[in-house]
Amino acid sequence: MNIRPLIASLVFVVCALPAGAEDGYDLWMRYRAIDAGSYPDLDARVHELVVAPGSATLETAGRELASGLTKLRGRPLSPVPAVTQSGAVLLGTPRSSAEIAGLPLALERAGAEGYVIRSVTLDQKQVTVIAANSDVGALYGAFHFLRLIQTRQKLDALDIVSNPRTQIRVLNHWDNLDGHVERGYAGQSIWDWHKLPGYLDPRYTDYARACASIGINGAVLTNVNANATSLTPSYLEKTAALAGVLRRYGVRVYLTARFSAPIELGGLKTADPLDPAVREWWKAKIDEIYRYVPDFGGFLVKANSEGQPGPQDYRRTHADGANMLAGPLALHGGVVIWRAFVYSNETPDDRAKQAYNEFVPLDGKFASNVLVQVKNGPIDFQPREPFHPLFGAMPKTPLMMEFQITKEYLGFATHLVYLAPLYEEALDSDTWVKGKGSTVAKVVDGELHGYHETGMAGVSNIGADRNWTGSHFDQANWFAFGRLAWDPELSSQSIAEEWVRMTFNSDPAFVRPVVSMMMGSREAVVNYMTPLGLHHLFDTGHHYGPGPWVNNLNRADWNPTYYHRADAAGIGFERGPRGSNATSQYSPRLAAIFADPRKVPEQFLLWFHHVPWDYKTSSGRILWDELVYRYTHGVEVVSQMRRTWAGLEPYVDAERFGQVSSFLAIQEREAQWWRDACIAYFQTFSKRPLPPGVTPPAHPLEYYQSLKFPYAPGR
Amino acid sequence: MNIRPLIASLVFVVCALPAGAEDGYDLWMRYRAIDAGSYPDLDARVHELVVAPGSATLETAGRELASGLTKLRGRPLSPVPAVTQSGAVLLGTPRSSAEIAGLPLALERAGAEGYVIRSVTLDQKQVTVIAANSDVGALYGAFHFLRLIQTRQKLDALDIVSNPRTQIRVLNHWDNLDGHVERGYAGQSIWDWHKLPGYLDPRYTDYARACASIGINGAVLTNVNANATSLTPSYLEKTAALAGVLRRYGVRVYLTARFSAPIELGGLKTADPLDPAVREWWKAKIDEIYRYVPDFGGFLVKANSEGQPGPQDYRRTHADGANMLAGPLALHGGVVIWRAFVYSNETPDDRAKQAYNEFVPLDGKFASNVLVQVKNGPIDFQPREPFHPLFGAMPKTPLMMEFQITKEYLGFATHLVYLAPLYEEALDSDTWVKGKGSTVAKVVDGELHGYHETGMAGVSNIGADRNWTGSHFDQANWFAFGRLAWDPELSSQSIAEEWVRMTFNSDPAFVRPVVSMMMGSREAVVNYMTPLGLHHLFDTGHHYGPGPWVNNLNRADWNPTYYHRADAAGIGFERGPRGSNATSQYSPRLAAIFADPRKVPEQFLLWFHHVPWDYKTSSGRILWDELVYRYTHGVEVVSQMRRTWAGLEPYVDAERFGQVSSFLAIQEREAQWWRDACIAYFQTFSKRPLPPGVTPPAHPLEYYQSLKFPYAPGR
Repeated sequence: MNIRPLIASLVFVVCALPAGAEDGYDLWMRYRAIDAGSYPDLDARVHELVVAPGSATLETAGRELASGLTKLRGRPLSPVPAVTQSGAVLLGTPRSSAEIAGLPLALERAGAEGYVIRSVTLDQKQVTVIAANSDVGALYGAFHFLRLIQTRQKLDALDIVSNPRTQIRVLNHWDNLDGHVERGYAGQSIWDWHKLPGYLDPRYTDYARACASIGINGAVLTNVNANATSLTPSYLEKTAALAGVLRRYGVRVYLTARFSAPIELGGLKTADPLDPAVREWWKAKIDEIYRYVPDFGGFLVKANSEGQPGPQDYRRTHADGANMLAGPLALHGGVVIWRAFVYSNETPDDRAKQAYNEFVPLDGKFASNVLVQVKNGPIDFQPREPFHPLFGAMPKTPLMMEFQITKEYLGFATHLVYLAPLYEEALDSDTWVKGKGSTVAKVVDGELHGYHETGMAGVSNIGADRNWTGSHFDQANWFAFGRLAWDPELSSQSIAEEWVRMTFNSDPAFVRPVVSMMMGSREAVVNYMTPLGLHHLFDTGHHYGPGPWVNNLNRADWNPTYYHRADAAGIGFERGPRGSNATSQYSPRLAAIFADPRKVPEQFLLWFHHVPWDYKTSSGRILWDELVYRYTHGVEVVSQMRRTWAGLEPYVDAERFGQVSSFLAIQEREAQWWRDACIAYFQTFSKRPLPPGVTPPAHPLEYYQSLKFPYAPGR
Repeated sequence: MNIRPLIASLVFVVCALPAGAEDGYDLWMRYRAIDAGSYPDLDARVHELVVAPGSATLETAGRELASGLTKLRGRPLSPVPAVTQSGAVLLGTPRSSAEIAGLPLALERAGAEGYVIRSVTLDQKQVTVIAANSDVGALYGAFHFLRLIQTRQKLDALDIVSNPRTQIRVLNHWDNLDGHVERGYAGQSIWDWHKLPGYLDPRYTDYARACASIGINGAVLTNVNANATSLTPSYLEKTAALAGVLRRYGVRVYLTARFSAPIELGGLKTADPLDPAVREWWKAKIDEIYRYVPDFGGFLVKANSEGQPGPQDYRRTHADGANMLAGPLALHGGVVIWRAFVYSNETPDDRAKQAYNEFVPLDGKFASNVLVQVKNGPIDFQPREPFHPLFGAMPKTPLMMEFQITKEYLGFATHLVYLAPLYEEALDSDTWVKGKGSTVAKVVDGELHGYHETGMAGVSNIGADRNWTGSHFDQANWFAFGRLAWDPELSSQSIAEEWVRMTFNSDPAFVRPVVSMMMGSREAVVNYMTPLGLHHLFDTGHHYGPGPWVNNLNRADWNPTYYHRADAAGIGFERGPRGSNATSQYSPRLAAIFADPRKVPEQFLLWFHHVPWDYKTSSGRILWDELVYRYTHGVEVVSQMRRTWAGLEPYVDAERFGQVSSFLAIQEREAQWWRDACIAYFQTFSKRPLPPGVTPPAHPLEYYQSLKFPYAPGR
């Protein structure tokens, strides 16, 4: 009797029924069973799992590996204590496993958090070893091995050494205690503070898993616009409960420190960082925090920025403020991460210059456990900015990179914008401060200046939405951030390929067009929102949609008109020596390039220069025509993305296909809105006709100016 | 070869892998496959499904039935056009099916929305017929048939006629346009207004399915504290998109109307309901709404209450306001639902009397398509209230019942409180207005006064949380509301049994203790929060936790002290003739009972009377001792619920077991907090010792008074 068809049909029927919807909850850890015929390596190299007992984290690594491999194989794989056959996968550390201790793995190359994955022969058996010096290293190695299988790599001659290039790889959650996420477009905060510590949502574990799978080792739980209440005992108890969940996955918790907490909680009259009572208060508070969370990571501080209190309120410097906190934290192994995103209450001549002006004089004045966290660009997470001039300018102060994963200025959750090319562009930027190749990546990973602390922060796009990030493709941005924090020199293209294979499927007929769509998506949003170096054209407050005409806000540098400076003569912010001279904040060689409209990369033309409408661009078109062309082209690329996706229906489950289709339709409509509104507005200055054949805006300017969105999310 | 074990193990392995977590998303529509041996009726009576083509709603009914039966059987069941064998299930209407038209089903008994489910013999074949006069009736019948199977009923001699007792069975979503849900404890609103109409979350469909499965046929999408923006074209477009999804499941959409919208949106100087321009504005607006939503249900209005604008602002009556809207709505088949929860800006002598005083004089003055929606009790959704005296007092005005499903005053999402006993107590209350048996249910279903319109509203507990309602057991309250709106005479116990079997499993060893736990849970919360008729002891604003001492709010009737009136002499609100005389609002026979402390049911003792601390209660204990006893007993019942649940681990999946366990632990802690805080506070008046053997409060009163919860959800 041939029972195969019977079994197959039975399995099909019974399993087809309760199969969970493809709602994106699994992220890139979507371990769907792989057909053995299509990938013989899996069968040959994975049929025994050897994990020795160890710490909670090593146990977690073993469980993740067992569960992932079981799902990928479609057959259970339970850990056994020792290698008994070829095809064994051996996971552990020299401490946990005598077999690993006995192998010549040169584990010193793996460092404190890295790992080695290697095909070896052990007692004449072919074995894949995943080994690390630390338990968390083994966990990272386990996820790497799963990734190899998810992306169908050869498993027969592995020799991988991987080692994170930055030490602090951390998500910044801009989450308020009431559950609102500032600039969040994926629902409420995943931290349910009200039910903590009594209820530990299983989602916390899944969050930690996802972080660990891409090497993220820290989470700042609270908003940089900080609330002192998060430092009260009842909230520390909640934080401790969360830390207990995250710890198993090697994720340390951090909190934001409100600088005025000694006044608000401690009843002091001042928060002056040199006041002994203030220093005493913080010391006691920090000691208290470590009683709740023994491996507390430290504080992230936004001070003297956008109304937040800070040391300058007492005529002290950022270094005074940071060092006050750093002292007591150092006793427990914690750090201070001090944000460089500052601006004073007076309108500066050029907001782009402010952080540099305030921080460069402080180089060398920070305590050794202080890192300064710098946004990738000098303004604020725009679709495109040149790299921040602080990178390379503070050789004695560890600078952390701050990327924004949530798309505050890039279309919220509905626009498909793959951000790794933006991150890559920033990291690959050459500062030239120590000659060619002095890239921002080498500043951040400590190589250039020999930083003893390094890190990279991503402003989280995570919320309570079922798919975590508000859209399926926004998951790729979380993934890419983690991968780049681990290795800033990975290519955005290879990360996209990995992610697509892990999240959807490995069919080249699907992977190729989707990766290509992702890779073009960031340039598209630059074009349909802020081409040629334009920036900050967003409508007030919510940053949803265009508002280049906005000119009524209290501070000049809150108004889009401050940034684009369009007039009858031309458009753009003159930041060369004739203007704000922000170009001088870069190294001399770059400064000379940026200062010259003929030399500056055209993508930054209007960032650095006010340029006449009839300026001849590299395409041969005059600036006005080029601007219209870019805006139009941005929309066309989105239309093309829609068509591409529409053709991929056979390769994707209905639920994800449908959501992405709907979102692309929204994106196309909003891209058109951006283009039309901006062209209609800038035309009032250029007074020039649209180039021949170009479709005029659908509505008069007044229509776009009349649109109001009082309930746009994320404020 | 015996392949059974092989197949079984294969099915187990392969299915075990991708099986969705038991996260509660499926609600009571959790159609897990039933082992055929344990329930032979299923195999015998369900192996063919016959559905004729029809409207979208009939098609939906067929699809729901096919999908539900497929899952329950563990084998596909695809619809066929005609009966070919015994065991057929035939679904439809006389219009859709000649076979149904030919059967003597006495379908007139099913009315417009009801159905008949009957075992018949057709051409010598045993057939189960699910028939209705309308497509939506067939949909309701399909869900009823699925429920029969889920609860393992005999299927061999069915003869069911079911017919809703109220016409408008509607959820009130107190959802704001920014996604916040007022008094919501299950995350953000499920309506993602920002992404509408471009994205139709599949969750909207699942919401509509769940509503239809229990007979709910309407949804008020917006908060009763209304926002005129919901009536602007861009929001009507969003509403129309939602209505398109809900319509297939027979769910009509309603909106809340902000009374001042003619000023805010129309630019008028007044919203006076007798002003011709105002009337013209509403007429045009209503016509516009019906262009977007042709089957729009109508408006729910909260006017002149808690700061909302209303007709009294112009010295007009509620009837003037309602009738202005009713006229243009009537042209399209819409209704006005006017809330009776009003209170003026002056503090009344007794807030409990206010709605009666304002509305009784208006009886007979409302247009025929106006219903007045009355909360179950005269104060505000307390753990226990006597029924609202309006019921029975407005024979010429259709009164809708308003129950609160969300647990604003009953422990938010974490307390296990099954509300059907509360609903049942209200519905079963005898008004005596036409002699014995003049129950509130008979007022609401129209029998007592011959109302031509009838309805029941439930304030939704639904949010974006994965399990919809914030906790698994809160799903039962949504379910029970729908079942009671369909048939107000169902017993809360039978509804609980149904729900447990549908949502968890049918094992009596599980069903019995869980139902018993649910049935005792409401009395427990009454005891640990507000025993013996106490009410409104909640802390300010958020209503989280006890605040019986609060006495500093602007309005006297916002303060708990206004309601409990504890003093050296005793405790309670004197509402008899010596006091506010609220008792006189009830029918004479009841009034006499309520007015007499010796006759009033003890559960309402302190609601109606100020009683000395040494008053002898029915238990033989003096009032103070009885109060302490009740508070203590409430906590004990919760502890017992925890123990019961702990013993049920073998019967429940780990995820739901774990969440319920955590929540019961939270509930136990908070019940203790309520007890301790209230005893500590009331003891300052009674000056009496605790009865012997009773544990004193864990902390001094000042501790409880010092607790602050600025970020409690739902405000």
